[in-house]
Amino acid sequence: MKAAILAVGDELLAPGRAETNSVFLTDELAKMGIPVVFRAVVGDDESAIEALLHRTLLGADVVFLTGGLGPTADDVTRDATARALSREMELDGDWLERIQKRFDRRGIVMPEVNRKQAMVPRGADLLPNRGGTASGLWIRVDGDKAVVLLPGPPVELRAMFEAEVEPRLSQQAGDVVYDVRKLWVTGLAESAVEQRVCETYLRYKNPATTILASAGQVELRLTATGTNKCAAVAANDLLVAELRALLGNHLFSECEEELEEVVGQLLVSQEKRIAVAESLTGGLIACRLTDIPGASAYFDEGFVTYSNEAKTSVLEVPALLFESVGAVSEEVARAMAAGARARTGADLAVAATGIAGPSGASETKSVGLVYIGLASSDGLRVEKYQFPGTRRQVKRWTSQAALNLVRLELLEH
Amino acid sequence: MKAAILAVGDELLAPGRAETNSVFLTDELAKMGIPVVFRAVVGDDESAIEALLHRTLLGADVVFLTGGLGPTADDVTRDATARALSREMELDGDWLERIQKRFDRRGIVMPEVNRKQAMVPRGADLLPNRGGTASGLWIRVDGDKAVVLLPGPPVELRAMFEAEVEPRLSQQAGDVVYDVRKLWVTGLAESAVEQRVCETYLRYKNPATTILASAGQVELRLTATGTNKCAAVAANDLLVAELRALLGNHLFSECEEELEEVVGQLLVSQEKRIAVAESLTGGLIACRLTDIPGASAYFDEGFVTYSNEAKTSVLEVPALLFESVGAVSEEVARAMAAGARARTGADLAVAATGIAGPSGASETKSVGLVYIGLASSDGLRVEKYQFPGTRRQVKRWTSQAALNLVRLELLEH
Repeated sequence: MKAAILAVGDELLAPGRAETNSVFLTDELAKMGIPVVFRAVVGDDESAIEALLHRTLLGADVVFLTGGLGPTADDVTRDATARALSREMELDGDWLERIQKRFDRRGIVMPEVNRKQAMVPRGADLLPNRGGTASGLWIRVDGDKAVVLLPGPPVELRAMFEAEVEPRLSQQAGDVVYDVRKLWVTGLAESAVEQRVCETYLRYKNPATTILASAGQVELRLTATGTNKCAAVAANDLLVAELRALLGNHLFSECEEELEEVVGQLLVSQEKRIAVAESLTGGLIACRLTDIPGASAYFDEGFVTYSNEAKTSVLEVPALLFESVGAVSEEVARAMAAGARARTGADLAVAATGIAGPSGASETKSVGLVYIGLASSDGLRVEKYQFPGTRRQVKRWTSQAALNLVRLELLEH
Repeated sequence: MKAAILAVGDELLAPGRAETNSVFLTDELAKMGIPVVFRAVVGDDESAIEALLHRTLLGADVVFLTGGLGPTADDVTRDATARALSREMELDGDWLERIQKRFDRRGIVMPEVNRKQAMVPRGADLLPNRGGTASGLWIRVDGDKAVVLLPGPPVELRAMFEAEVEPRLSQQAGDVVYDVRKLWVTGLAESAVEQRVCETYLRYKNPATTILASAGQVELRLTATGTNKCAAVAANDLLVAELRALLGNHLFSECEEELEEVVGQLLVSQEKRIAVAESLTGGLIACRLTDIPGASAYFDEGFVTYSNEAKTSVLEVPALLFESVGAVSEEVARAMAAGARARTGADLAVAATGIAGPSGASETKSVGLVYIGLASSDGLRVEKYQFPGTRRQVKRWTSQAALNLVRLELLEH
């Protein structure tokens, strides 16, 4: 079984724009042993899509089209597919009703253009979309082939793939099976990770390993093959066991859990509560902690004390410190953490102060200098960092380091 | 002049692999006013490349093929191109000599397979490669069209593009120039934007307009062409003026400024300060406000009051309200905004309370229900919303709506 992917949308061909749905689909299909043999990006051009779809079906058993399912005039994927497959378009009354209800729930009159989203090629199965008004479509072709239309917004596409596409495909999977494992590491630079592990992973032909770094996080991606799932998993297991030993506590997830998720689980299992006091991160640490469902089990409040006055009035940081050592200092990080813990009565309080840039540097303190304080029943500790990059990257690095400090504190006590 | 890109190589279709040459070429071509209308990734499959190249030439003036120029059996790009264009293959004696010398310099006998790299379609110009044995090829087709073969390794491709391709293209690119304009809109759903503007933009053949939506934001992208920059800009100006009138205050940026940037500029120009009180957004509004360099000019502090107790102790929200109307209510949003403004003495305070989901819904209040309060010298106002999507999307929608309320308040007063 072979797959092809056609991503539709003028905007995907614009400069500075990466097309991510194809990458996601390629990865997911590989896990099922279905190779992608062709991938294309086309504009919102009905005849181009039609011609390409026609050709592509010759070489693939299942063709995915992503995007162009919206209600507007430039959304032409449904019509182009119907024409390529010589199918009539019909109104799906049930789906129209669901779209109608979606608008009703929000107290909005459904715009007439949305009616178009309920027009489907004859014989197509609708794939429900919980996140939007564009349904997906599964169209059987020539008996055992299929053309599958998925919405362009990545969140909607991913949810629909998991809920609707994967179950249908897994009944038809192929003869080489993949197992992909992602190890997420923090607290080490990319080159430091590479040095620790490269000798080991290079000894393996199967799995193949790649390293990918972003601000404050390094991913080791292992791709193993086998004649069945068990064989591929076993090949990965061998290398993963070696890597675990080499990476120690720096390895924080083997199943794509963000750092805030790992921290949340530790807080829940230890029945501890956390408070946050933020200067340069401006709320990012609290925002990440509350991105996790059920965060109210361990998070009550956070303080974004951006000005010195706020640090003093809310967290009781001694005003003298700003003159003697400055707001970006070990002492202020310590006082912020202590103040947040005292004020809230939380088990843990983490605080960050630093220079996000681009301005704010001095002769002795450069952009990217950050102090993170942690207050707990064990007392107070402060770590100093020098992060690279833009303002947003420095904020991101800082939030990673702060969450990691909390994680290590919870692991060690 | 329009371009298409075919990236060739089985490895480019493997999982966990992003194809970067196309992105590089798209960006470089855009700078010269040459839009990419089609992009594909194909395996090392001679007949697939041949068929695709044949088709693609119909829609593009210049087609780039990248990769598959090596000496081994799976390098088929040269042969596939010659067949698609019905050209004979010939040995280029000069290039063979250069390859030979390259090996001589390294003291290695040239493998016989490398001879293949000097076989070129008749009439092709060789593009020298300083970094490898694969020359590029420039093949004129039908007078003014061209097929351009470039090596796959990004370093070689980039160097060859700069040294050989750009100078040739810039002589031909002069005749059509592009101007791209992006109008960013908030406070209206995608379909509502479409209904307001579609009749108008469809009257224009130049510029072409596309609509793209994300949580709380809709982009109208106008691409105009002209014989020179002034003509293209003028074509866009006409439609932009009409769209401005139709969109009114919903249009917040014409130059890719995020909402937080627009709000920051308004606060600076009006010399006002803002405070934030957040429940469901967990710090996201404060984080976005402080993403902007110089935010300390208008932002001192924010409060993430996640629990009811925090709302009362920090913002003096009357505890009785939680029992009578609940934390997600007009009254609590109002009290949070008033409390934040009173506590900080800021000119404006914005507050958000709602249900981010997935849990927390009740019989009368569903996931996505949000109240946003705004306190200013004019008094208090509260808006009610029902947002769709995941937890993170609801947070994002809420932050957009909150920043937009602030923007409208600042514009109107």
